[in-house]
Amino acid sequence: MTLKRLTCSLRALLQRRCQITNISSTGLEQPHCISSVYKAGVLIARSYYGAARSTDQADDGSVPVRTVDLRSDTVTKPGPAMRRAMAKAEVGDDVYGEDPTVNELQRQAAQLFGMEDALFVPSGTMSNLIAVMSHCRERGEEIILGEKSHLHIYEQGGSAQCAGVHSCTVRNNPDGTFNLEEVESKIRHGYPDSHYPRTRLIGVENTHNIQGGRVLPLAFLKELRGLADRYDLAVHMDGARLMNAAVALSVHPSEILQHCDSVSVCLSKGLGAPVGCLLGGPREFVQRAVRARKVLGGGMRQAGILAAAGILALNNMVGRLKDDHRNAKTFARALLQADSPLCCVDLSTVETNILRFRVQQPGLTPQEFCTRMEAVTPGEVESLGQGVRVLMFPHVEGSVRAVWHLDVSEEDTELAIRKLNYITHKYREERQSA
Amino acid sequence: MTLKRLTCSLRALLQRRCQITNISSTGLEQPHCISSVYKAGVLIARSYYGAARSTDQADDGSVPVRTVDLRSDTVTKPGPAMRRAMAKAEVGDDVYGEDPTVNELQRQAAQLFGMEDALFVPSGTMSNLIAVMSHCRERGEEIILGEKSHLHIYEQGGSAQCAGVHSCTVRNNPDGTFNLEEVESKIRHGYPDSHYPRTRLIGVENTHNIQGGRVLPLAFLKELRGLADRYDLAVHMDGARLMNAAVALSVHPSEILQHCDSVSVCLSKGLGAPVGCLLGGPREFVQRAVRARKVLGGGMRQAGILAAAGILALNNMVGRLKDDHRNAKTFARALLQADSPLCCVDLSTVETNILRFRVQQPGLTPQEFCTRMEAVTPGEVESLGQGVRVLMFPHVEGSVRAVWHLDVSEEDTELAIRKLNYITHKYREERQSA
Amino acid sequence: MTLKRLTCSLRALLQRRCQITNISSTGLEQPHCISSVYKAGVLIARSYYGAARSTDQADDGSVPVRTVDLRSDTVTKPGPAMRRAMAKAEVGDDVYGEDPTVNELQRQAAQLFGMEDALFVPSGTMSNLIAVMSHCRERGEEIILGEKSHLHIYEQGGSAQCAGVHSCTVRNNPDGTFNLEEVESKIRHGYPDSHYPRTRLIGVENTHNIQGGRVLPLAFLKELRGLADRYDLAVHMDGARLMNAAVALSVHPSEILQHCDSVSVCLSKGLGAPVGCLLGGPREFVQRAVRARKVLGGGMRQAGILAAAGILALNNMVGRLKDDHRNAKTFARALLQADSPLCCVDLSTVETNILRFRVQQPGLTPQEFCTRMEAVTPGEVESLGQGVRVLMFPHVEGSVRAVWHLDVSEEDTELAIRKLNYITHKYREERQSA
Amino acid sequence: MTLKRLTCSLRALLQRRCQITNISSTGLEQPHCISSVYKAGVLIARSYYGAARSTDQADDGSVPVRTVDLRSDTVTKPGPAMRRAMAKAEVGDDVYGEDPTVNELQRQAAQLFGMEDALFVPSGTMSNLIAVMSHCRERGEEIILGEKSHLHIYEQGGSAQCAGVHSCTVRNNPDGTFNLEEVESKIRHGYPDSHYPRTRLIGVENTHNIQGGRVLPLAFLKELRGLADRYDLAVHMDGARLMNAAVALSVHPSEILQHCDSVSVCLSKGLGAPVGCLLGGPREFVQRAVRARKVLGGGMRQAGILAAAGILALNNMVGRLKDDHRNAKTFARALLQADSPLCCVDLSTVETNILRFRVQQPGLTPQEFCTRMEAVTPGEVESLGQGVRVLMFPHVEGSVRAVWHLDVSEEDTELAIRKLNYITHKYREERQSA
Repeated sequence: MTLKRLTCSLRALLQRRCQITNISSTGLEQPHCISSVYKAGVLIARSYYGAARSTDQADDGSVPVRTVDLRSDTVTKPGPAMRRAMAKAEVGDDVYGEDPTVNELQRQAAQLFGMEDALFVPSGTMSNLIAVMSHCRERGEEIILGEKSHLHIYEQGGSAQCAGVHSCTVRNNPDGTFNLEEVESKIRHGYPDSHYPRTRLIGVENTHNIQGGRVLPLAFLKELRGLADRYDLAVHMDGARLMNAAVALSVHPSEILQHCDSVSVCLSKGLGAPVGCLLGGPREFVQRAVRARKVLGGGMRQAGILAAAGILALNNMVGRLKDDHRNAKTFARALLQADSPLCCVDLSTVETNILRFRVQQPGLTPQEFCTRMEAVTPGEVESLGQGVRVLMFPHVEGSVRAVWHLDVSEEDTELAIRKLNYITHKYREERQSA
Repeated sequence: MTLKRLTCSLRALLQRRCQITNISSTGLEQPHCISSVYKAGVLIARSYYGAARSTDQADDGSVPVRTVDLRSDTVTKPGPAMRRAMAKAEVGDDVYGEDPTVNELQRQAAQLFGMEDALFVPSGTMSNLIAVMSHCRERGEEIILGEKSHLHIYEQGGSAQCAGVHSCTVRNNPDGTFNLEEVESKIRHGYPDSHYPRTRLIGVENTHNIQGGRVLPLAFLKELRGLADRYDLAVHMDGARLMNAAVALSVHPSEILQHCDSVSVCLSKGLGAPVGCLLGGPREFVQRAVRARKVLGGGMRQAGILAAAGILALNNMVGRLKDDHRNAKTFARALLQADSPLCCVDLSTVETNILRFRVQQPGLTPQEFCTRMEAVTPGEVESLGQGVRVLMFPHVEGSVRAVWHLDVSEEDTELAIRKLNYITHKYREERQSA
Repeated sequence: MTLKRLTCSLRALLQRRCQITNISSTGLEQPHCISSVYKAGVLIARSYYGAARSTDQADDGSVPVRTVDLRSDTVTKPGPAMRRAMAKAEVGDDVYGEDPTVNELQRQAAQLFGMEDALFVPSGTMSNLIAVMSHCRERGEEIILGEKSHLHIYEQGGSAQCAGVHSCTVRNNPDGTFNLEEVESKIRHGYPDSHYPRTRLIGVENTHNIQGGRVLPLAFLKELRGLADRYDLAVHMDGARLMNAAVALSVHPSEILQHCDSVSVCLSKGLGAPVGCLLGGPREFVQRAVRARKVLGGGMRQAGILAAAGILALNNMVGRLKDDHRNAKTFARALLQADSPLCCVDLSTVETNILRFRVQQPGLTPQEFCTRMEAVTPGEVESLGQGVRVLMFPHVEGSVRAVWHLDVSEEDTELAIRKLNYITHKYREERQSA
Repeated sequence: MTLKRLTCSLRALLQRRCQITNISSTGLEQPHCISSVYKAGVLIARSYYGAARSTDQADDGSVPVRTVDLRSDTVTKPGPAMRRAMAKAEVGDDVYGEDPTVNELQRQAAQLFGMEDALFVPSGTMSNLIAVMSHCRERGEEIILGEKSHLHIYEQGGSAQCAGVHSCTVRNNPDGTFNLEEVESKIRHGYPDSHYPRTRLIGVENTHNIQGGRVLPLAFLKELRGLADRYDLAVHMDGARLMNAAVALSVHPSEILQHCDSVSVCLSKGLGAPVGCLLGGPREFVQRAVRARKVLGGGMRQAGILAAAGILALNNMVGRLKDDHRNAKTFARALLQADSPLCCVDLSTVETNILRFRVQQPGLTPQEFCTRMEAVTPGEVESLGQGVRVLMFPHVEGSVRAVWHLDVSEEDTELAIRKLNYITHKYREERQSA
């Protein structure tokens, strides 16, 4: 391939590269570009499909480009075994309670959680909303939760909008916990005094997404349980990544959940199922949850197709989460060793599959860092022998988030490290010539 | 097989037979029995799974029993082609807009509906709720809809509960239409007068479920459109069974939908997909719908698995709906010919795949009629050579509802007719001996 | 006074006359004109203040004009005794439960209603909304009520908008009752089935506003109570004009209310107090109501000022309601005797202080009829010796509503009759000359 | 009077004394006792009426007791002039917009605020709720406000419960302001991204109740306005005590409000009117507010009775607020001079009529301090020549709150100081003898 031809094909590629915009108001109108937006201290991205294809070709097929998608563990695609399980799933009408695969998934989940019952729902957002609706049964109730929790930040305020439940937040510590004295000071236990909402629920998140996949210590949960019991409050765990926490702590999930009344566990994150979340809790709670799921429109018919993937995920995919944790740590170590002027990381905070690191170069925004990791240049192809497109999301407080999952191998991780080293090298060159 | 052995095996069967209860408050507590309940003029059933297995054996394997499940067209199970389509679906993260199969389904649906855009959602209930939320954008708005519409009766009052939208109902005619003068008299067009909610939306249902699968005449829709335009109102069609209407009218769906601003079309009813519904409408409406879907928890990840079934359903399953319509009519005619003292039917009302007929024998409730159709007795096996378990739901105003779908063949229909004739015969015998 | 001068002054008057508009979207923008609007089968009016002044002068003081305001019994103004009671009321902070006059009013009301407790709230709309909120405590609940009830028509859909409670309506009979079989057919007693809201409350209205002040028969209420008990439902009475009903039936209010769980009774309608409503019910219900009142913003501080008027109203104003009833009947009889081509009335429907009569002349709208009753012409002054401005509201189904109250005397009623006869006479003249 | 008789009468008094309970769950059930409850870092009290009577007698009339009620400026009672104004107020039906006194109050208020329009509503809680409803018009919107704001703490979560609006809080500085960078970091300006609620409104409170009557600096408001403009957000000021702020700053209210889109100003706090609040804002905002007021049930009929007091309050009561400020400062200085082991105060924080001081004695709770200030003992009567019952509320973070108003004179303040000195003296005695 002549250099000219290479350059042309790369130019085409680059014209399709992500366009970082600062205001996402155009996000939906421009379905063909990525708008990675840093807002409310958090980010969201919409990219053209294909961005995530893990092996790519330039338009003329001449340049091999490998995509390493570290945006989120939600992007995983079901593999052959999971697809086979879905294809042969025995199904029935789950609205009538007749889907045997859904029933089996719910039975297994309840057992895994050490809870009386569990319910299969389409998403983690719905699972959390249903939990709020099912715990907070009367008018004028309130939930206390961490100010950086997914439920507070990323769920469009559904607890207020759809459930009419007031939110009171406490500060999250860097490890995802919060100060229990602050929680206690905010409990409104004076019901029926009419000035106050009535605190009914405390929400925790484990692992903690925004805080970088941190695992809540069991001692914290035990103490929280005691506090909740003193005031007759329920504890809900947004355990979208509960299995990551269990793996990191080397404990059975039920050991974590013994301190909680209910839990949401996502099947479509690290566990790799395409769709779905499990909401566990006491039997009466789950009965109310069935009603809440229905009114929200989460009752599905032959949901066993999805549940079959869920059963496989619960049984076969938990073991491999440690690989994601290890790969995340490997990247973090490489980042430290690179002694890059671009970014830095505190290795002790890397507990599971999420890595948060700070972009420390003044004048370089997290967005720009991500653009550099994603863009493939002729120089890179020449230098590395191939293009490596690494997708990450700019994150809160000047940081970048990278998430490992089953579609990112050890080799992918090495490629991402090489890309990091490459852009570090290029950045140093630019600075020297400037 | 000796008669004694037959009797024993049938006794076992009968002990598992449906138990009709009058109050469903125990419905969820007793997952292993059917509670077919007639309430609010309408019914709901929860049965043990297995009830719907289309070929059954007595417990000892000695007696062949065929189950013909006419409860609803939601009970269909995906066949081999659909399962293959799901197994090989190309997928992506649909929350990021990256699932190519979902995008393709939405594109095809928009085209089919003749609308700007469409959105894939987990259920018809969610689709209708999102439509209400997306049309009624301000506080204090109101929807006018038929008092027998699914949205009013079967969706747990979600429009009030989750969307804060007031409902004003008009009487449904037997054909599913309503009187437009009554509608006009109920429009609150005096905004901003503070006494009134502001009417924003008129809801229609096509085909009309409770009224027995009736098809709304195009002339009615055209007139309704004119009325809506005069008062600047939107029209939403709950077209859960829109394709049945299109087939019955022999028109393209877009010819029906030209009179509507938005539509919900279920993939998991007559079209046979396991899960999902499409919400079509103008582009800005669908953009708001994306937000509403998210807050309700309907955003799914690799939803392409389900969308693949949806694409196949839209493309391959519409043609066969006429078979369901024909089978329903065949059964209706047989019912007329039987001149049964048990029930009667008005043949002119059988337009699609839903049949409603009245139980006319004093002292025989619709529940008892359904029990007789479901129960398999030794006499029946002896007389018919096999057991036929026909599942139907008791319905409004002393009627029974039977619904045809892809898992009920012409032969199944014949078996159901034979069962009907058999219980008619037995009933006459009982009366004579009484 | 010369005829010319008279004409001029009348022209000035007429330029200020009510301007009937067909669409009230301009209602708030034009505070200086009346927009009496017929919509949703019901009406609303906003008029320039001064319209209601009971004795008026033309702008130059030359023509005496008497205004008889029959728009609503809400327009009454407190007389000297009531003003004195307010001026010397002992007060305290009612949010702290320390207002002795409010406490006394609530005590007296509870006794009058034969209920455990009562709560003073700013309006009937709030009282009804609080009742809905306090009866319907859980998510997904429903109220059944008459389709012409104030709660359904005139309260901006607050039960859905603020309380998330679904509404299911039944047809109102002309006497304000409804068919109890229809009610029973609509009760959703299948809780916890997830398709249905759960019926918790039945609402009745007594006397019935839209139906023309009709009194609910005690036998109807007794039967309704039985039905409600069978399904464990609560009964709330919107008794805005309960005292009119009690007077019409010659019974103590508690005899009516024995069939109800809760009641709203307005102090600012026939009873003549400026502001307020009493919500009665069981003690625990009222405790919840205190919370609901607070969140809605109905907690007032030194509300004893208003409560003092309420006490006087309850004790001194009930007796005179019979005068309003008699005056309404007098006008109705005159209307019959006039044998007017303009309108007709069914005397048997005139039970209390509200009169509904039909405008029967083709081509004459209720709005035009009201305009003629309100406008003062030179001919009228010449003919009657004075101008009489009679204010009424166009009403549902081609009717006009007139309401008697303490600011409309027997003499005022005679003047209104004379005005009616005058415009009837003029109308006949116009028709003959046309 | 013999000592024995004195003791007996005091015993009777003391039996009626406030009973401090730690859990107010019994608050409503025990209407005859005070339950001053410290919860959620804040307090609420319900006391038997009579507690607030400013001159009291022991039951046998033998012991003069003076009550100084420093619980809140909401407890003021209208004086003769205000009662006269109410007694002669010209009124009309305000639901029809016909109450001239309400209209006049609204006109004056709009002028005072420098805003286009204003609306009279029954309470500050309703005014704030309406503001939230009228600014946040679409689904999925959010308000950012201080975590110690009245709207967040004391209004039962109405923004979520009734308006479906999500709350996001920022930390309040001791002076009631907050960090604008924190605000900016929490603005969700990525609409229509579906993960986020859309920030529409920032709420401030001036003077700040929980922070002890602190006045927001104009420079802060100006900067906040700039921030809000950059993101196209509205600013609502909960100015329940706006006039105290204006007096403290010696500026016209409109100078403060130039930075706000809307404001709530209470008439029933320092201004001494019995009931009501004014909500000011742009004309279209107020038009929406009229609808919100109606659905909440805040539409009142002859509200001119209350509005007359409001007009007098706005015109005659602002000037005297400086007396309250001076009295509060006098008490604070006395507290400092007393060098009491019981409590301490930072004089620089006393800017208006609210005084917060810390109870610093270990083992003495704010509740016990308040009990001592309220209880009247024989020793006190002997020592001071009379009993002085001083009512205060325990407050957040181990503090006590005292509020001055028109029913607390300079002389009352001196009596309260003497009572403070007396209990300080007694406490020292107790400690020495212990």
